[in-house]
Amino acid sequence: MLYGALEAGGTKMVTAIINEKGEVLDRASFPTETPETTMPVLIDWFKERKPDALGIGTFGPADPDEASPTYGYITSTPKLAWKDYNILGAFREALNIPIGFDTDVNAAALGEASFGCMKGLSDGIYITIGTGVGVGVLTNGKLLHGMLHPEAGHILLATNPKDSFEGCCPYHKNCFEGLAAGPAIEKRWGKKAVELKDVPEVWELEAEYIAKALVNYILILSPKKIVLGGGVMHQLQLFPLIRKKTAELLNGYINTKEIHDIDNYIVPASLNDNQGILGCAKLAENAIR
Amino acid sequence: MLYGALEAGGTKMVTAIINEKGEVLDRASFPTETPETTMPVLIDWFKERKPDALGIGTFGPADPDEASPTYGYITSTPKLAWKDYNILGAFREALNIPIGFDTDVNAAALGEASFGCMKGLSDGIYITIGTGVGVGVLTNGKLLHGMLHPEAGHILLATNPKDSFEGCCPYHKNCFEGLAAGPAIEKRWGKKAVELKDVPEVWELEAEYIAKALVNYILILSPKKIVLGGGVMHQLQLFPLIRKKTAELLNGYINTKEIHDIDNYIVPASLNDNQGILGCAKLAENAIR
Repeated sequence: MLYGALEAGGTKMVTAIINEKGEVLDRASFPTETPETTMPVLIDWFKERKPDALGIGTFGPADPDEASPTYGYITSTPKLAWKDYNILGAFREALNIPIGFDTDVNAAALGEASFGCMKGLSDGIYITIGTGVGVGVLTNGKLLHGMLHPEAGHILLATNPKDSFEGCCPYHKNCFEGLAAGPAIEKRWGKKAVELKDVPEVWELEAEYIAKALVNYILILSPKKIVLGGGVMHQLQLFPLIRKKTAELLNGYINTKEIHDIDNYIVPASLNDNQGILGCAKLAENAIR
Repeated sequence: MLYGALEAGGTKMVTAIINEKGEVLDRASFPTETPETTMPVLIDWFKERKPDALGIGTFGPADPDEASPTYGYITSTPKLAWKDYNILGAFREALNIPIGFDTDVNAAALGEASFGCMKGLSDGIYITIGTGVGVGVLTNGKLLHGMLHPEAGHILLATNPKDSFEGCCPYHKNCFEGLAAGPAIEKRWGKKAVELKDVPEVWELEAEYIAKALVNYILILSPKKIVLGGGVMHQLQLFPLIRKKTAELLNGYINTKEIHDIDNYIVPASLNDNQGILGCAKLAENAIR
């Protein structure tokens, strides 16, 4: 079997062909322009490679509810060219193969659960912190959708009293994404995150906001593993700071073997930034079943 | 079939006998003292009534993981007489019938999902706000345990800048329970909640904290329904305030039919405070299967 994988992002579309072992046999990347210009390129790429099934992990909001009339649509995205766009339908019509569909972060969570550090776990979360913050959630062995799908990058946090930055989410002044995604770091400190590597207070504050979010994820979802990926998390100096601050904030309230072994509980993505496309391959496999 | 139900609370133990239709045929209540004095009374009560199975929904933290060596224990509770107590084992030995086990709030969520206003929904939450705050969670049609079980009453919230009350949770200064459970209301305002019914600022602030928590539950769990029970929620004037504030804080970010119909999304418990024991009866039924 050959699985097609499409990680549909707001800036780029990553395509891949992956075999049953999770080996990436081919991959490419295309800028995300409009459905009219971008979709034919993607469709041709997959048509030439003839996968047996396709898995799509998309930016959102999207509709992953199979029972919904807008299943497979990118819905109320601020990227207006893609608003209410039936991306699943377009691929179905062009390729005529089974297609799985979910959010980009749910796909990444599935990638880690199928091939990476969440393998064998029934419950875990994958968080990406980059230009935005997204969270994919696995509960009871299944990806979580519920009413829509988690939008846990937008949870409200208590702002550090010394932080005068107002947050840069257009919806919520003090949400996680608005306080801690890449653009927030750049606006608060006046430089890009990568240029601030040696400024400790940047990462102390960043770790504090990430830890405040993790504490709420832990208390609400009770995950068995927390995987952090995305551009900001390439700053690996964050990990020890996040772990320390998370333990401090929980303050001994949750007594589990996982929390006591926090170095193996809060971890970096384990699949060299292939967690998304590998998860898409798994969505493709599931679509065949 | 006759199902035995035990809602094991920190102050009282509620027992019931319930039939397959969810009708409560018999019920009683006993003070929660120590296992030595309380357990024989409960065991005798059930022995006399001969249920075919028993369901236990307990205060916690508890261990609801069937694969764990401490499955069925009340674990690190501050009620020391019950700390690390194998309540499931004690009933198993005495009654020799199938027994289901979960947290009190998961049982209540199951009660609402089986007989009440969450019937037919795959994803929803039940929140009790009383002497403490607890949250039971249904995702993908199953009760959520994960690493332990949700402890979502302890999520950290942004304190209202005009609220000088420090919170009364011994673990976290600004957690939901510490800011908004019954004891917090009483300590902040110097009177019991029921005596403050006509003081609008009490309920404005209470609704703000509840709404801040709901926003995070919505963004993380994406529930299809939110059911609020417990002593504090008997103040029904809270509901319109909570709905308004929740919508304000979400600020249009989540566009779903459920959020647009918020009066039917955030609702009071629907089973006359029987949601707990009815959920326990369902745990009993599931234990037979």
